Amino acid sequence: MTITEDIRSTISSVREEVAALHAELPANGLVVWTAGNVSARVPDADLLVIKPSGVRYDELGAESMVVVDFDGNLVEGNHSPSSDTAAHAYVYKHMAHVNGVVHTHSTYATAWAARRESIPCVLTMMADEFGGDIPVGPFALIGDDSIGRGIVETLTGHNSPAVLMAQHGPFTIGKSAKAAVKAAVMLEEVARTVHIARTLGPVNRLDQTDIDSLYARYQNVYGR
Amino acid sequence: MTITEDIRSTISSVREEVAALHAELPANGLVVWTAGNVSARVPDADLLVIKPSGVRYDELGAESMVVVDFDGNLVEGNHSPSSDTAAHAYVYKHMAHVNGVVHTHSTYATAWAARRESIPCVLTMMADEFGGDIPVGPFALIGDDSIGRGIVETLTGHNSPAVLMAQHGPFTIGKSAKAAVKAAVMLEEVARTVHIARTLGPVNRLDQTDIDSLYARYQNVYGR
Amino acid sequence: MTITEDIRSTISSVREEVAALHAELPANGLVVWTAGNVSARVPDADLLVIKPSGVRYDELGAESMVVVDFDGNLVEGNHSPSSDTAAHAYVYKHMAHVNGVVHTHSTYATAWAARRESIPCVLTMMADEFGGDIPVGPFALIGDDSIGRGIVETLTGHNSPAVLMAQHGPFTIGKSAKAAVKAAVMLEEVARTVHIARTLGPVNRLDQTDIDSLYARYQNVYGR
Amino acid sequence: MTITEDIRSTISSVREEVAALHAELPANGLVVWTAGNVSARVPDADLLVIKPSGVRYDELGAESMVVVDFDGNLVEGNHSPSSDTAAHAYVYKHMAHVNGVVHTHSTYATAWAARRESIPCVLTMMADEFGGDIPVGPFALIGDDSIGRGIVETLTGHNSPAVLMAQHGPFTIGKSAKAAVKAAVMLEEVARTVHIARTLGPVNRLDQTDIDSLYARYQNVYGR
Repeated sequence: MTITEDIRSTISSVREEVAALHAELPANGLVVWTAGNVSARVPDADLLVIKPSGVRYDELGAESMVVVDFDGNLVEGNHSPSSDTAAHAYVYKHMAHVNGVVHTHSTYATAWAARRESIPCVLTMMADEFGGDIPVGPFALIGDDSIGRGIVETLTGHNSPAVLMAQHGPFTIGKSAKAAVKAAVMLEEVARTVHIARTLGPVNRLDQTDIDSLYARYQNVYGR
Repeated sequence: MTITEDIRSTISSVREEVAALHAELPANGLVVWTAGNVSARVPDADLLVIKPSGVRYDELGAESMVVVDFDGNLVEGNHSPSSDTAAHAYVYKHMAHVNGVVHTHSTYATAWAARRESIPCVLTMMADEFGGDIPVGPFALIGDDSIGRGIVETLTGHNSPAVLMAQHGPFTIGKSAKAAVKAAVMLEEVARTVHIARTLGPVNRLDQTDIDSLYARYQNVYGR
Repeated sequence: MTITEDIRSTISSVREEVAALHAELPANGLVVWTAGNVSARVPDADLLVIKPSGVRYDELGAESMVVVDFDGNLVEGNHSPSSDTAAHAYVYKHMAHVNGVVHTHSTYATAWAARRESIPCVLTMMADEFGGDIPVGPFALIGDDSIGRGIVETLTGHNSPAVLMAQHGPFTIGKSAKAAVKAAVMLEEVARTVHIARTLGPVNRLDQTDIDSLYARYQNVYGR
Repeated sequence: MTITEDIRSTISSVREEVAALHAELPANGLVVWTAGNVSARVPDADLLVIKPSGVRYDELGAESMVVVDFDGNLVEGNHSPSSDTAAHAYVYKHMAHVNGVVHTHSTYATAWAARRESIPCVLTMMADEFGGDIPVGPFALIGDDSIGRGIVETLTGHNSPAVLMAQHGPFTIGKSAKAAVKAAVMLEEVARTVHIARTLGPVNRLDQTDIDSLYARYQNVYGR
């Protein structure tokens, strides 16, 4: 595709945004070593900006980010894109309202994913942020579009911006990359809290009418 | 209400105090993202100073704090007040000795709240700080005064400065905002320690006479 | 007692040492708020240097430390001594080889103390540092010498420099204040590791001959 | 052995590398106090560079590192080598492809080691990094070559770069010291995640064909 001057300038600011958001992953304890990534859609272009493969978080600047198209072809960048790029690209291609995607192996969310167990909506902050249970996606191997398809099929028609890919880990989406990062942070928080609650006894799901009412209010206030 | 020069000067110092205390929440691991808030009563006025809604902890200065009256009307400030303002205001209106309120979703306290289970007084430091069990409050939806009422009804006549609102999270009160923050910190500490103790076996409540004696001594020394 | 120039100079360096060691408590995650303290015996004097009561760790300098005699009388200092001073003093009075004492409510050690359960010696690093199980001391109320007596009676004739005071928390001793701090750090580490091991199944105690051999070698190398 | 100028220059850069990698141990929460160590083989010499005994991580520079031969004899350095040197040396002597070794008592890995239970391969990131289960090695006392032999015998012919030495703790190996540190970090991450998953129910091992396929792809991309 042809990259106009306008798009080049947009890419430059998306690179800054995505680089800055990567700092939230270690700051919020969601990742170790290089095992997590943030991407953002480039507005008005079928492009995304994503973390390079194998680079440590403290070495990531705007200039090290990678730009690829939705078929995963390298458009701009000095590094290889993250191994998870195909999954991110698939989401942008098939979910037009999504402008940011985050993948981590954050500990408690991954523990629920390991058991292939969805997180029941037992806390008001879960109702606020996720609007119900946090669902499990299929087991899928890296290498083709099966992870991307699993994310899209699980989240389509679902309030939750987070999916727990079976025996793998969570992906979150958002109307911006920042919203997807917030969802990744809140996901780990509720995954941890509900896990800890459950270790000493059962916890009841909230009533559906309460969940719906909390979710409607919160989305209205914070306008996701 | 009319705001005199004296009150304006008082508000200014309460803003500083409340802004500084917010830094304790992430420093003590009680919050992620923007999910917790501290307020203080403005002495000699039916006003309170509270965190603005949706602002990150590292962006909070004295100038970003919001001043509201006890009906939740904005009196001073460039941001919307926290969504939890009505609950804070209700407490100040109905508990004259309370000058500070803190709300968090700290992990272990919220886990007890999720199970609607009070924390039994099994440690001397719990007797010191809380004077007995830490009680559970009712399940209440945000939007009217039901959270505030639940806090006040549960804590009235109770030694504990902390209440676990069912399937929501903790609120703490204090004779100062700093005391309410200390209570929030100590609550999470005892919630975590008792949880961990209980995962490997039962723990016995302290004798009531020992609890009373420890509480009386501690309140005398630290003069809450 | 008369304080000579020599002792005054010694006190000054002990104040520096004890102030610096207090920084290890929050750095190693052993304390929240003000709930832990380090003391050191003043060589050639029946005096000890200890943390002042109610002062935060980031406000503690050498000058804020308090000097008391073994009956708890204030000898030097601008603050009240820690509430736990009587327990520290009792230990120095009755255990001549002890030159440092530490008290915390570190989470996992306190959880074992809450259940009144000693930590079994199941790891080589426990054999190295503690030479066997870590024992539980009696339940004792603050206010007289019963905590001090409980520590001394439990640790006398025992390899372990750490005791878990029932439903209260740990005390550790050492031939220096630094050694007592190291014992507090290693105690929490083994308390946490053995707790976590036990949550998924039983763990076997090491053979006594292996424990003795590991302990003898380690004490020889690090010459506690 | 004779140390040529070339080797002296190589040693100097290995010292820098090993000193810098030690900072990763506390930064990733793998160690407390002085209880963990990294070593690297000196290329083209039967020598290794290792942490000195009993020195704190914040006091470790390139100049404090110790150089020993494969029989544990001190070749260069102002401190005694780590107590674990014999185990590291044994590995270099018997595994020619190993150029880095790390030993820690990281909490969750040590908890599995305490129960003498291997970590089952239930997550895609375990298949990627470890190529299968993480095995348990024998119980072995320090003082002769039995720890080294246990490591070598367990890891020979095994995909995993990590072994859980029974009731002791983990050792990891790598084609470089950095790779061994990465393995130590990822080991603790998977040990923690699988532990947490298992506390609320069973977790299924991945299919062997999926494990093999994930491992082959990952080793190809990151070329360990």
